[in-house]
Amino acid sequence: MSATTIDYGKLYSAGLPDPAPRWAPFPKYYFVGGNNDPEQIPIEGLIEAAASVLRRDGSKLAIYNLGLGPQGYPGLRQFVADKCERQRGIKAPIEDILITTGSGQGLDMISKLLVNPGDTVLTEEYCYQGAMNRFRKLGAKLAGMKLDGDGIVIEALAQQLADLKAQGITPKFIYTIPTIQNPTASILPLDRRHALIKLAREYNVAIFEDECYADLLWEGVEAPPALYALDPGCVIHLGSFSKSLAPALRLGYVIAGWEIMSRLLPLKGDSGTGALDQMVVAEYFSRNFDSHLGHLNGVLREKLNTMTEAVEREFGSSAECWTPKGGIFLWIKLPASIDVRKLVKPAAEAGIVFNPGPEWAVSADNSSNCLRLCFAMPSKQTIRDGVAELARVCYEQTGIPLRSGNVARQ
Amino acid sequence: MSATTIDYGKLYSAGLPDPAPRWAPFPKYYFVGGNNDPEQIPIEGLIEAAASVLRRDGSKLAIYNLGLGPQGYPGLRQFVADKCERQRGIKAPIEDILITTGSGQGLDMISKLLVNPGDTVLTEEYCYQGAMNRFRKLGAKLAGMKLDGDGIVIEALAQQLADLKAQGITPKFIYTIPTIQNPTASILPLDRRHALIKLAREYNVAIFEDECYADLLWEGVEAPPALYALDPGCVIHLGSFSKSLAPALRLGYVIAGWEIMSRLLPLKGDSGTGALDQMVVAEYFSRNFDSHLGHLNGVLREKLNTMTEAVEREFGSSAECWTPKGGIFLWIKLPASIDVRKLVKPAAEAGIVFNPGPEWAVSADNSSNCLRLCFAMPSKQTIRDGVAELARVCYEQTGIPLRSGNVARQ
Repeated sequence: MSATTIDYGKLYSAGLPDPAPRWAPFPKYYFVGGNNDPEQIPIEGLIEAAASVLRRDGSKLAIYNLGLGPQGYPGLRQFVADKCERQRGIKAPIEDILITTGSGQGLDMISKLLVNPGDTVLTEEYCYQGAMNRFRKLGAKLAGMKLDGDGIVIEALAQQLADLKAQGITPKFIYTIPTIQNPTASILPLDRRHALIKLAREYNVAIFEDECYADLLWEGVEAPPALYALDPGCVIHLGSFSKSLAPALRLGYVIAGWEIMSRLLPLKGDSGTGALDQMVVAEYFSRNFDSHLGHLNGVLREKLNTMTEAVEREFGSSAECWTPKGGIFLWIKLPASIDVRKLVKPAAEAGIVFNPGPEWAVSADNSSNCLRLCFAMPSKQTIRDGVAELARVCYEQTGIPLRSGNVARQ
Repeated sequence: MSATTIDYGKLYSAGLPDPAPRWAPFPKYYFVGGNNDPEQIPIEGLIEAAASVLRRDGSKLAIYNLGLGPQGYPGLRQFVADKCERQRGIKAPIEDILITTGSGQGLDMISKLLVNPGDTVLTEEYCYQGAMNRFRKLGAKLAGMKLDGDGIVIEALAQQLADLKAQGITPKFIYTIPTIQNPTASILPLDRRHALIKLAREYNVAIFEDECYADLLWEGVEAPPALYALDPGCVIHLGSFSKSLAPALRLGYVIAGWEIMSRLLPLKGDSGTGALDQMVVAEYFSRNFDSHLGHLNGVLREKLNTMTEAVEREFGSSAECWTPKGGIFLWIKLPASIDVRKLVKPAAEAGIVFNPGPEWAVSADNSSNCLRLCFAMPSKQTIRDGVAELARVCYEQTGIPLRSGNVARQ
């Protein structure tokens, strides 16, 4: 708008990121981002919850942190305690629970707690980009842990820790998403969980457990207890309301014993997480969590089915999907000859955005033929049309897939 | 709670802050913190606003940033644009407005934008602690600008800039709270505003204008236009909803031209500000801002009167108060022989917390006999009782004030 009247170029600090572009609305086929299904927001339930909780506690809004301390609204912490005990086997008093401004703030805080430049951090070989970016920004070197359809391969990790030790390297922590892994959507079995904790204790490596997707399980799927439930003494637990309810509400939580919590709290620099978001979610979920999640997970599973059917139809045998046990994304492997990074631009020109594998992996070596597609936000028709468009773009760029919907291309 | 099963001491990063103490409820006489009057939270108004805005836009909660981009809920940005044009003379399109997670996030971002270690930053000699702490944490050296009852003394600043230039030092920015200065609660007159901008342009120094308290003006008090209104080309403007409505809602805003905004946006690391807080405040204030503020400012002025009367009664001629033109705090000067830092502990033992001058000033040299008392949250009776208790503590520690309520002590 207005021109500057001083030379800001002389004033900027060193090492600023590139300027942001002007914001543009989402393209037609938006298969990225941890968004949810807009039709599943319980609008009337949130309105009732807002009225009820504001009449009871609204006057407290006049005070920073509601006058109740920096760890968050006690009603929401109690809900987290109850939910995590019932569903994840975690026994934690609300003094060990911190509400964060999204799980991203928890990621920031825990990273700052543990990472010095040059430290080694172990992450799953395919891994949440937002976590890897944060670790790398603090100067961490990432080492990828081998995954199979059930998550971390323990024998490989044991060897990796021994090898690192032989080099004199003690990793600071193991970052893992054991329940609905991002992006493979697997669940780590109980025996592997015990073995993982044994290794962490043996090598004095902390476990950073991210369970942002653990509420999104398909009906009939059972997850073993959280790692934190098995040994709170070496695990820091992270959770979120972004996936179970709504990401525009910035609400996550950290569970950790007081030794860790007392170190984390000074790193929460925002004078408290937004109180209305906290209060309304506490009130709504205290009464409606099971029914909301039961319904939401049914809807998400249908959308996944729509997406896997579309991928099978459009890509045929060229695409190999990991089988999600819940969540909002599908991790797809294409033939090794394809580098998905070359598809990004032509896909964008066709209105398609997806996560190229190398952005969701420690190394491009075993991920350049992989991609992540998110299915919670788009409608079923958009999923069908978008996957078909993506197959068309892929064929035009690579000659693969040769057949779509049992019909040869060309 | 649970003991650790690994040695976290080997894992913590370098330079962590001290561990947090367990949270304890506020003491009886809590005269610190930017809290508001709990009785003035418009509970029914917020409930109505929540219902109305959720019915209209609630489904958007399913998407990060409501699917509307990283600068915040457009309805709230439009309200900020309208309010700032009407009351502060600012003409800014909503593209130049960023909603932040409290004004504290804006402070963080603007500091990171401009401060390299070793840089000089000019702040008012008596200054908001949260701002000074942030600048210092990034390695800035603070230089205090002389204040009188109308804010920055321009002649002194001109000399200071010339002296700095002679030493080869160009300050990065001038941080100022021109409208209800914190802690002196003064308002900078129009001619000084023009002169300040002239100096900023002459010396190529940015102006960081913090107007967190500018909505809290006593009836009949007129503030000149914001510095940003006078020259958006060298000013970055910061505002807040913490003081006009509620600090537990974490909502502030930055106004800046696109060159600056595009540099600030990548520094907002929280994936968006809490949406429900934004939506409800937009809806409520779009309809009720003037009536809410008119009423709130009347209540605050009465509380200020209660406090100044109590200070006069209890401290007599030993206390000299700056005369607030609005806001929520009173800046008091005691005789030069008193070091208020020595009162902190005995006051705390009597249940009193206040801001000792040196924490609210660039230097202890001219502030060790000053203190800041906040009056918005405590009741009038608490204000009266607490000030009387503080005078008693002060007398016991220093022999001053000799008389309280026209009665000699001893």
